[in-house]
Formats: sequence, structure tokens, C-alpha cells
Amino acid sequence: MSCEEKIAAMKQRVFEANLALPQYGLVKLTWGNVSEVDRELGVIVIKPSGVRYERMQADQMVVTDLSGNIIEEDSLKPSSDLPTHVVLYKAFEDVTAVTHTHSTHSVMWAQAGRDLPAYGTTHADAFYGKIPCTRQLTKEEVKEAYEVHTGNVIVKTFKERNLEPNEVPGVLVYGHGPFTWGHSPIEAVENSLILDEICLMAKENELINQNIGEIPQYLLDKHYFRKHGKHAYYGQ
Amino acid sequence: MSCEEKIAAMKQRVFEANLALPQYGLVKLTWGNVSEVDRELGVIVIKPSGVRYERMQADQMVVTDLSGNIIEEDSLKPSSDLPTHVVLYKAFEDVTAVTHTHSTHSVMWAQAGRDLPAYGTTHADAFYGKIPCTRQLTKEEVKEAYEVHTGNVIVKTFKERNLEPNEVPGVLVYGHGPFTWGHSPIEAVENSLILDEICLMAKENELINQNIGEIPQYLLDKHYFRKHGKHAYYGQ
Amino acid sequence: MSCEEKIAAMKQRVFEANLALPQYGLVKLTWGNVSEVDRELGVIVIKPSGVRYERMQADQMVVTDLSGNIIEEDSLKPSSDLPTHVVLYKAFEDVTAVTHTHSTHSVMWAQAGRDLPAYGTTHADAFYGKIPCTRQLTKEEVKEAYEVHTGNVIVKTFKERNLEPNEVPGVLVYGHGPFTWGHSPIEAVENSLILDEICLMAKENELINQNIGEIPQYLLDKHYFRKHGKHAYYGQ
Amino acid sequence: MSCEEKIAAMKQRVFEANLALPQYGLVKLTWGNVSEVDRELGVIVIKPSGVRYERMQADQMVVTDLSGNIIEEDSLKPSSDLPTHVVLYKAFEDVTAVTHTHSTHSVMWAQAGRDLPAYGTTHADAFYGKIPCTRQLTKEEVKEAYEVHTGNVIVKTFKERNLEPNEVPGVLVYGHGPFTWGHSPIEAVENSLILDEICLMAKENELINQNIGEIPQYLLDKHYFRKHGKHAYYGQ
Repeated sequence: MSCEEKIAAMKQRVFEANLALPQYGLVKLTWGNVSEVDRELGVIVIKPSGVRYERMQADQMVVTDLSGNIIEEDSLKPSSDLPTHVVLYKAFEDVTAVTHTHSTHSVMWAQAGRDLPAYGTTHADAFYGKIPCTRQLTKEEVKEAYEVHTGNVIVKTFKERNLEPNEVPGVLVYGHGPFTWGHSPIEAVENSLILDEICLMAKENELINQNIGEIPQYLLDKHYFRKHGKHAYYGQ
Repeated sequence: MSCEEKIAAMKQRVFEANLALPQYGLVKLTWGNVSEVDRELGVIVIKPSGVRYERMQADQMVVTDLSGNIIEEDSLKPSSDLPTHVVLYKAFEDVTAVTHTHSTHSVMWAQAGRDLPAYGTTHADAFYGKIPCTRQLTKEEVKEAYEVHTGNVIVKTFKERNLEPNEVPGVLVYGHGPFTWGHSPIEAVENSLILDEICLMAKENELINQNIGEIPQYLLDKHYFRKHGKHAYYGQ
Repeated sequence: MSCEEKIAAMKQRVFEANLALPQYGLVKLTWGNVSEVDRELGVIVIKPSGVRYERMQADQMVVTDLSGNIIEEDSLKPSSDLPTHVVLYKAFEDVTAVTHTHSTHSVMWAQAGRDLPAYGTTHADAFYGKIPCTRQLTKEEVKEAYEVHTGNVIVKTFKERNLEPNEVPGVLVYGHGPFTWGHSPIEAVENSLILDEICLMAKENELINQNIGEIPQYLLDKHYFRKHGKHAYYGQ
Repeated sequence: MSCEEKIAAMKQRVFEANLALPQYGLVKLTWGNVSEVDRELGVIVIKPSGVRYERMQADQMVVTDLSGNIIEEDSLKPSSDLPTHVVLYKAFEDVTAVTHTHSTHSVMWAQAGRDLPAYGTTHADAFYGKIPCTRQLTKEEVKEAYEVHTGNVIVKTFKERNLEPNEVPGVLVYGHGPFTWGHSPIEAVENSLILDEICLMAKENELINQNIGEIPQYLLDKHYFRKHGKHAYYGQ
């Protein structure tokens, strides 16, 4: 496959994953974006900024280098969150695609500023333990380079807590919303869907039972590794 | 464009924006209305009262002068909330379109009689700070001219709190529901959609974290001015 | 119009109103039913028992006399709630159609055993004040004639509280769910839709503001009589 | 009918019931599965593991013997929850079909670790009393044979509490989610739908009225036996 063909295929995947966002009920209006990286090719493909999903076309996806500089002539402007994606791709080497949404229930937790506890196996099937909520960005960080520091605070959170991005493919950014990732654009979107659903469940759990605790480690292990890693036995 | 053509175009825009209300899930039955003003032309175009969205046609939109008097012969009756729209257009000179709904989550806050705190960046992207809830109308106001005083209490609330309608394009009327506005009918409707969503998020935030506070001013500034004003860099 | 034509027209209206129940999201599976009475003709038309909405046909609607005895040969069995409808038609002389559902939010309030307070104008637009919740049926009532006594307890509730069925076109039956009514099958269904929505709003209101009170009488009067009675000015 | 024809018919029923899961809003992505047993024929038919509903075909349903061993050549892998289904079919002799989902509201209760109280007649119409939540599985059970012990803990719960699977056609597995059953695949799915709805209602009931109690036994009896057993008079 030529470079051009590879980029065209990336555009198509990124386009389809972006369309999946409103189909899954994860975005309203133009909120949300999906990107994909190809490190060998040295390109990132991302949704253009503020374009309506119903009018968007595959060839409108924006192509940049690994630092986020636009490559193609006559390109639309990339999503304003691109610098966050760039930071995540540099720090998380196994991550191939990133999704950002303002999905209802994930944003609720992000705005509440709390880590999402692992209250059940629906969580454990996709995320290996608590999903962290970052600290608040400082005034200086917001003023200096807001989107870059949004990426930085995610990376720092993962480092400080010794978390593996492959095992916890998402994060809540304090006061803002979720970023999720995966090995393909659609997987990043699906992790966004799962995160939103378990955020909803967790919120309601606490109303049904105030003394609810997280599931035991052995059940978390069982469900996570039933679907992930070399001993997985879920799927075909 | 002739006056007639301008009015026909307004009718079409108002019609389409009204249809967007049930499509966005913001109204049930015949609840809700959208209008547009053209101050040079001296006309307001608004939805007819109590007409079903599924049967409504563009040429049924009602045309009035700037005081709300019907202009066209054989006109249907305008929305009973027209006098509120008239007051808003007189007081808020930059506002071109107004939407009123009974959307679920906005009404919840209006009925609860509380300002909507700015708990996150989804709020800050469209509304620059708290969204005010008006005081209760008095018995005299309700008896004398209910819809006019509904407009008056909105205008007073904005004056007393020194709020700029362009920066806070919506309000909660105590015990009633939301009014939003914008520079076009569809923008007014979108602000109604955003208001409903952030009302939902804020309600649930308080259940997840009882000690939740508003986002800091610098983050509010960053998100609002990323999308609005001369330094905006969101969109194409 | 002949009697046969009148009954055929009733069947069509009852059929369409029953179909509106799942379309409005008010019933799942076969839960819910709508009927219409013609007191001059001496007939009630009601949904057959346990028939799926997607397979139902207009001529399957069941025709009974005013006491609920089947009139037509080869008739399907009527909804098991028919005796409740019969009691309501005998007691509430202005009521032409009755709807029963297990819609989510109305059932929540019925199961919680509380009257629905009038927290806002969405409520006041359709229901003139609190919507009563009946007392629990006694063991004897349930054993003797459950569906008849369900009707009786509704009628008693309205008498004891001096409520006018035209002004409060619905009720919550303790531990069970809502019955609503109107001057046509579709109006009864619409009142069911409104009741469900204001039940949802009221529930959430109490979470947003624990000290919330009902709207003042003068606002209730204004909104109710803006839409109902000889001084109404809403609609065409 | 030949054995082959019987199995083809089972595959079709299991396929259609699996498709009903996303249609009813009970599953996202590939979560959830339905199976059917024919004890005379000695076969179980179940959904393949991790296959998308939108691409699934009837002949992809997996056929196993009564112990869960694959019978057909070139078969896909069965749902990873098959061992749970096998245990249930062995213990619950009248059960013909089993459904497992991660439906939102049922999972909330399962994660909260509480039995579902019978708060109303919507519950009583399908489930004769409280729906039990199992105990947590032990570390040993999870490590040894997770899916088998999931079935075992369900069976133990029913035995210890002296519950009849025909009368309570579902269970909440602690920290995980619901299993429901019935006399056909679609009935098992419908019980899953009902369980999810009454889980939602019960959760909200407790917010509306903290002192809510279960419905009295005589009302539970009335509604359950109105629809079930030899004195049933609901339906055609």
C-alpha cells in the first residue's frame, strides 16, 4: 500500500469512528473528536474543528505530522483538542487512536472531580481498575498552553499512579470530560461508550447502596484477563 | 432581496428551528416556540399557538410588528408567549432569535428555583458563568400581564446582576422553564439544547460530589473565549 | 352516521390511541390500554387483552355495553382492566376516554404512594393542582373484585378531596400506576404523557432543592385557565 | 420434524431473541447472550462469543450437548457464559431458555448487592416476590471455574431461599448482572426487559419515598396469579 493509500484508509477509519460518536449518543452538536496516529508514516489524522457530523466527509479529515503541524494544502483546521492528542501519542507508545467527548455521564464524573471506582464486572471487562480523574489544571497551565497541558496532566496522572495506558484506556479530566484510547479509532470510541455506561452505573450504585465497595481484586482480574492478554478466552 | 422575500426566508428559518425542537428532544406535544426578529424590517416571525409540529408548515409562521401586532391577513394566532419575546427583543438589542421550551432538565432547575452553577467546560463553552433563575412573579404581575412581566423579570434579572445577554444566552424563569436566544433561530435552539444538557449534568454532579464547586474563573475564561469573541480559535 | 359507522370510527380512534402509547414511550410489551365510551350508543370500545401493539388491528378492538359485557360475536377478550374503565365512565360523566399505562415515572410515584405536587407550570398547563394518589386497596377489596375496586378507590379519592375529574384528568393508584382520561382517546393518552413527564420533573426537583414548594395558586390559575375554560387564549 | 429441522428452528429462535436484546436497549456492543435447551434432543443452542449483533446470522448460533461440548464441525466458539447456562439447565428443569445481559438498571442493583424489593404491580405481574441477589463468589470459586460457580451460586440462592425458578424467573449476580429465564428464548428476553424496568422504578421509588415498603402479599398474589397459573385471566 502506498503512503497515499494508507492515509486515505486512515481518513476513512477516523471519519467512520467520528460518525459513530453521535450514533452511540456520545456527542451532541459538534462536541467530540477522534484521531488516529501512524508513527512509521509520521502522521496523525483528526476530525476538523467545529464541523457538523451530518455534513462531514472522509476527505475533510485533517492530516498533520506527529507534532500536529498541518501537512496537506487546503486543509481544514484540525480539532482544537489536537495538541492533547499529540501529547498522548508521544507519551503512550502503544496507543493508536484517541477519542474525546462530552458524553453525559463521563462528564458528570469529571465535573465531580472523582476517580471512577470499579463497582462491577462491566467495568472490569474493559478497564483494569479505577479510572483516574486528573487534578485541576493551574491558572498558569491554562494560560500558557491549555490543550498541551491537558495532555500533560493526563500523562502525569498515569505516571504518578503507575498505571498502564493499555490496561486503563481512558481518563477523566477534572472539570472537563473524558479522553479514551485504543488500538483503532473504533476501539477508542467503544471505550468511550463503555466509560460513559459505567459512569452512569456507578453514580446510581451509590444511591442504591451508600456502603458499596469496589469489586474484589480476584474478580477484577478474572473479568479483565478473560477478555485481554494472552490468556483471554472471550470472542472468536 | 425584497421585503417579501426576506419575510419568506425568516418564515423558513423559524419553521426549521421549530422543527428542530422535537428532533432534539426538547419539546413534547406543542410545547415550545421559536421566533426571529428583523428590526430594520420591523417584523417578528413566530410559531403559531398550539399547532402540532408534524402538521406545521412554513407559511403558517405568524408575522407581527415589533410590538407583536399581527400584520398578515388570515394569519393564525401567534404563540401565547409572544409578548415575552417582544420584551426580550426590545431590551436585548443584539438578540435576533428567541426560543422557549419545557425541556425536561431545564424545567427541573427552573422549578427548583436555583441558578445553574458553572460546574464544567461544557457549560463554559456556551455560557459565560452562572445561568440565572429569575425571582417568582408576583400575584399582581401575573394578573396584569403575565407574558409581558415574564419578559420584564428576565430583563430585570440581567440588569440587576450586570449580565450581558450575548455572554449568557439563556435564563431560567422561576417555576416555569427556560428561554434562550442567539443570532439566528437555530442558534437559539442549540443554546436550548446545551442548557438542557448542562442542567442534567449539574443535577447529577451534586449527587456524585456534594462538595462540588464551580470551575475556576480562568478555566471559564479559557473555554468561553476559545469559542467566542475575537480571540476564538474553535471552528473553521 | 349509522351505529355501525359510529362504532367503526370509535374502533379506529381507540386503535390509533393505543398505538400512540408505545410511540410516546409510555408502554413496554403489552402493558397499557385505552378505551372510549359513547353513552348515547351505550357502548365502550377497548383494547383486547395481552395483544401486541405491533400486530394489533383496528377491528380487533373489543366492543362492550356500558357494564362491560361483550357485544360482538367472535370478539377477543377485552383488557383485564375493563371493569376499572366501566366504573370511571359511570362516575365521571364528562369523561369520554380512559388510558392506563405502567409508564416509568408515573409508576414510580404510584409505587412511592405520594400525591404529585404541582411544582411548575408544565403541571399547571394540564392539571389543576396536586394529582392524588389513592389509598392502598384492602385485602377484601382485592379478593372480591380487584379491578372494580380499583375504579371505586379512584372515584372515592376524587369525592373525598372534592376534585373535579375535568380539572384533574388523572390519578395515581397506590402501588400500581396511573389512569388518565380526556374527551377523546388521544387526549387521554396525551394526559398520560404529560403526567409521566411531570412525575419525572417533580422527582428530580426534590433532589435539586429539598425545600421546594408548590407554585402559588395565582400562577396555577393563570396557566391552567390560559389553556382551559371559557377564558382560554392558547391554541387556534 | 427431523432433528435437523428442530435444531434449525432453535437456531432461528435463539438468533431472533439475541437480536431483540439491542432492539430492547438491553445490550451495548456484544454484551449479552441468549440460549435455548432441548433436553429430549440433548442440545443447547447459544450465541457465539463476541460476535456483533448487526453482523450475526442464524446459522452462526452454536450447538452443544447438555454439558456444553460443541457438536457441529466448523462451529464458532460459544458465548463464554455457556457454563453458567449449562448449570442452570441442569438445576432448573422447567427452564427452556436463559438470557444474560449487562442492562443498565439491573446491573446497578447487582453491583449494589441488594435484593430487588417488590414495590409495585409491574414487578408482581412477572416476578412473584423479591428478586434475589446472590452472595459474592469467593476467590477460590472465581479461580477454579468462574462461569460454573456463577451458575452454582444462583442455584444455591434459589435453594436456600426456597424459591421456585418458574415464579421468580431471574436473579441478580453480585457485582456482575442479571440472568433471566423462561419457556422460550423471547420470554427469557422479555423477563430481562421487565427486570431492567422494575430495577429502574425501584431505585427511583426509594428517592421519592425513603420509607417505602413492599406491596402487601395479597396484592402480589392478585397480580401474579392474574397472569400466571391455572386461574390466570390476562391475555387471549
